[in-house]
Amino acid sequence: MPNDNQVPDIVFPSGFRRLVGYQITHWAENEAKVAVALDQRHKNRAGYVHGGVITTLIDTAGGLAGCYCPEPGHVRRCATISLSTQFLGAVQHGTIVAHARVRGGGKRLFGATVEVHDQAGALIATGEAMYRYRTGHEDKRGVPREDAGLDDVD
Amino acid sequence: MPNDNQVPDIVFPSGFRRLVGYQITHWAENEAKVAVALDQRHKNRAGYVHGGVITTLIDTAGGLAGCYCPEPGHVRRCATISLSTQFLGAVQHGTIVAHARVRGGGKRLFGATVEVHDQAGALIATGEAMYRYRTGHEDKRGVPREDAGLDDVD
Amino acid sequence: MPNDNQVPDIVFPSGFRRLVGYQITHWAENEAKVAVALDQRHKNRAGYVHGGVITTLIDTAGGLAGCYCPEPGHVRRCATISLSTQFLGAVQHGTIVAHARVRGGGKRLFGATVEVHDQAGALIATGEAMYRYRTGHEDKRGVPREDAGLDDVD
Amino acid sequence: MPNDNQVPDIVFPSGFRRLVGYQITHWAENEAKVAVALDQRHKNRAGYVHGGVITTLIDTAGGLAGCYCPEPGHVRRCATISLSTQFLGAVQHGTIVAHARVRGGGKRLFGATVEVHDQAGALIATGEAMYRYRTGHEDKRGVPREDAGLDDVD
Repeated sequence: MPNDNQVPDIVFPSGFRRLVGYQITHWAENEAKVAVALDQRHKNRAGYVHGGVITTLIDTAGGLAGCYCPEPGHVRRCATISLSTQFLGAVQHGTIVAHARVRGGGKRLFGATVEVHDQAGALIATGEAMYRYRTGHEDKRGVPREDAGLDDVD
Repeated sequence: MPNDNQVPDIVFPSGFRRLVGYQITHWAENEAKVAVALDQRHKNRAGYVHGGVITTLIDTAGGLAGCYCPEPGHVRRCATISLSTQFLGAVQHGTIVAHARVRGGGKRLFGATVEVHDQAGALIATGEAMYRYRTGHEDKRGVPREDAGLDDVD
Repeated sequence: MPNDNQVPDIVFPSGFRRLVGYQITHWAENEAKVAVALDQRHKNRAGYVHGGVITTLIDTAGGLAGCYCPEPGHVRRCATISLSTQFLGAVQHGTIVAHARVRGGGKRLFGATVEVHDQAGALIATGEAMYRYRTGHEDKRGVPREDAGLDDVD
Repeated sequence: MPNDNQVPDIVFPSGFRRLVGYQITHWAENEAKVAVALDQRHKNRAGYVHGGVITTLIDTAGGLAGCYCPEPGHVRRCATISLSTQFLGAVQHGTIVAHARVRGGGKRLFGATVEVHDQAGALIATGEAMYRYRTGHEDKRGVPREDAGLDDVD
């Protein structure tokens, strides 16, 4: 069973994860945390984190929260249906973390709420998102990785 | 008066714009287009564009649409209040474009709707976002660039 | 084929439609208009239309837009997945109209964007919503009304 | 200091509150609960609660959460900027309750997150909304009721 330290090794990073540089720091059933250490590349021209960085973390964390798969060698995949974000504070420095929790859903769809905090613990954004499982990925046991295509929510 | 080709020279790119590689391809009063040529860096692990790329384009285009400033040497700045996105289609290749239009608002706030199309013209996402002007930037004549800090919506 | 005047006769009103008093004024493939003549019952304490009236019109119009069924005696049903609204102006009097258009989707899901105008034609809100078809209602020919339960999107 | 039982007496109901029949069941600093006992009037044609009832409760509870005013005879007013809702479950009977909490904001704007539960405690919807204080209502001491116009968030 994965612990937090093992998480980054389990999922080979996507192109956009490598580009933005975020990390999966926690992943369990119905829950995930995704973090990024801010530097100049994440900022808008005023020196604050770009809104797109925040929405990227929310989208990623929410999808992972619903796609945790305890079965060894198996994965689950989903696609985002809708995503909303409220921006409550600006941040310039440090590591920001998006913490997502699955809040409900049915066989094919699930919804997550997400909170994004800065390094001092201040809430800088809230988000909510709906996702659908890819066909064949509805069951929590997932599908063998080799049959799944690569994971598409990180 | 700027034409489309001149736009990229007018605004010095932010860190996140350079990282993601999007371009401002049109900018006029109450309207903006932002585009990115997709490559491996923009994708999730299934090979489709990451949702965070789409929300980044929507956030950026919507903010620019309300911050166009016809006054030479002047700029306007805003901050995003809220952003929502609906994902209507997946895309793997080509250039995607977010087209934003200001739809209303008052002295301090404005709202934009945004459509994102793929290179074949298919609608892949819709978005809507509310923004507030930075204090001192409410007037459409903006403020001298040297007094403004750098622009924070691109 | 129904024209606008016939629409209100086609769909027997739900409890909430009767309570709020909105009317379906246009219904065609991928499009619907829902209107309400404002009176004291629709207002907040400052005398403006309550936000809940506007979101009700958006939710209803968007769902209808995806559930138009040209087959005589047949209906389609859906359920709302997510709904977002931007409030761009206040209104006190007259008839307000929500105009919804389906913008995309797949076999089971669809997305709509909605604009709400006041009687003078000013845009007072924009909305976007995702819906899923009820199981068995995915096909545009719908199902016989007697097999459908009653329609749940008005 | 108001307790829960006193709340309904403090605020004279708006037209839409009377029409829909919801009650303010809790109101404190940065928090509010709004409830409605479902009957036929709140339903869509399939016999489930209409989405517009849920968004009405979310909008109302979120606004109240930011407008609690401890000063006797004083009130605060706000207007909704944006509202998003995720629908996670259907409900037919019993009393549903929207519980809103203010999550952040600045001098003029605030954001709330809202959860809607059915009578058995199941989560049926989540929402988030941004509001702006009416000019003159930014301070938590509010303004004398007679100078305020009537409250516009209930």
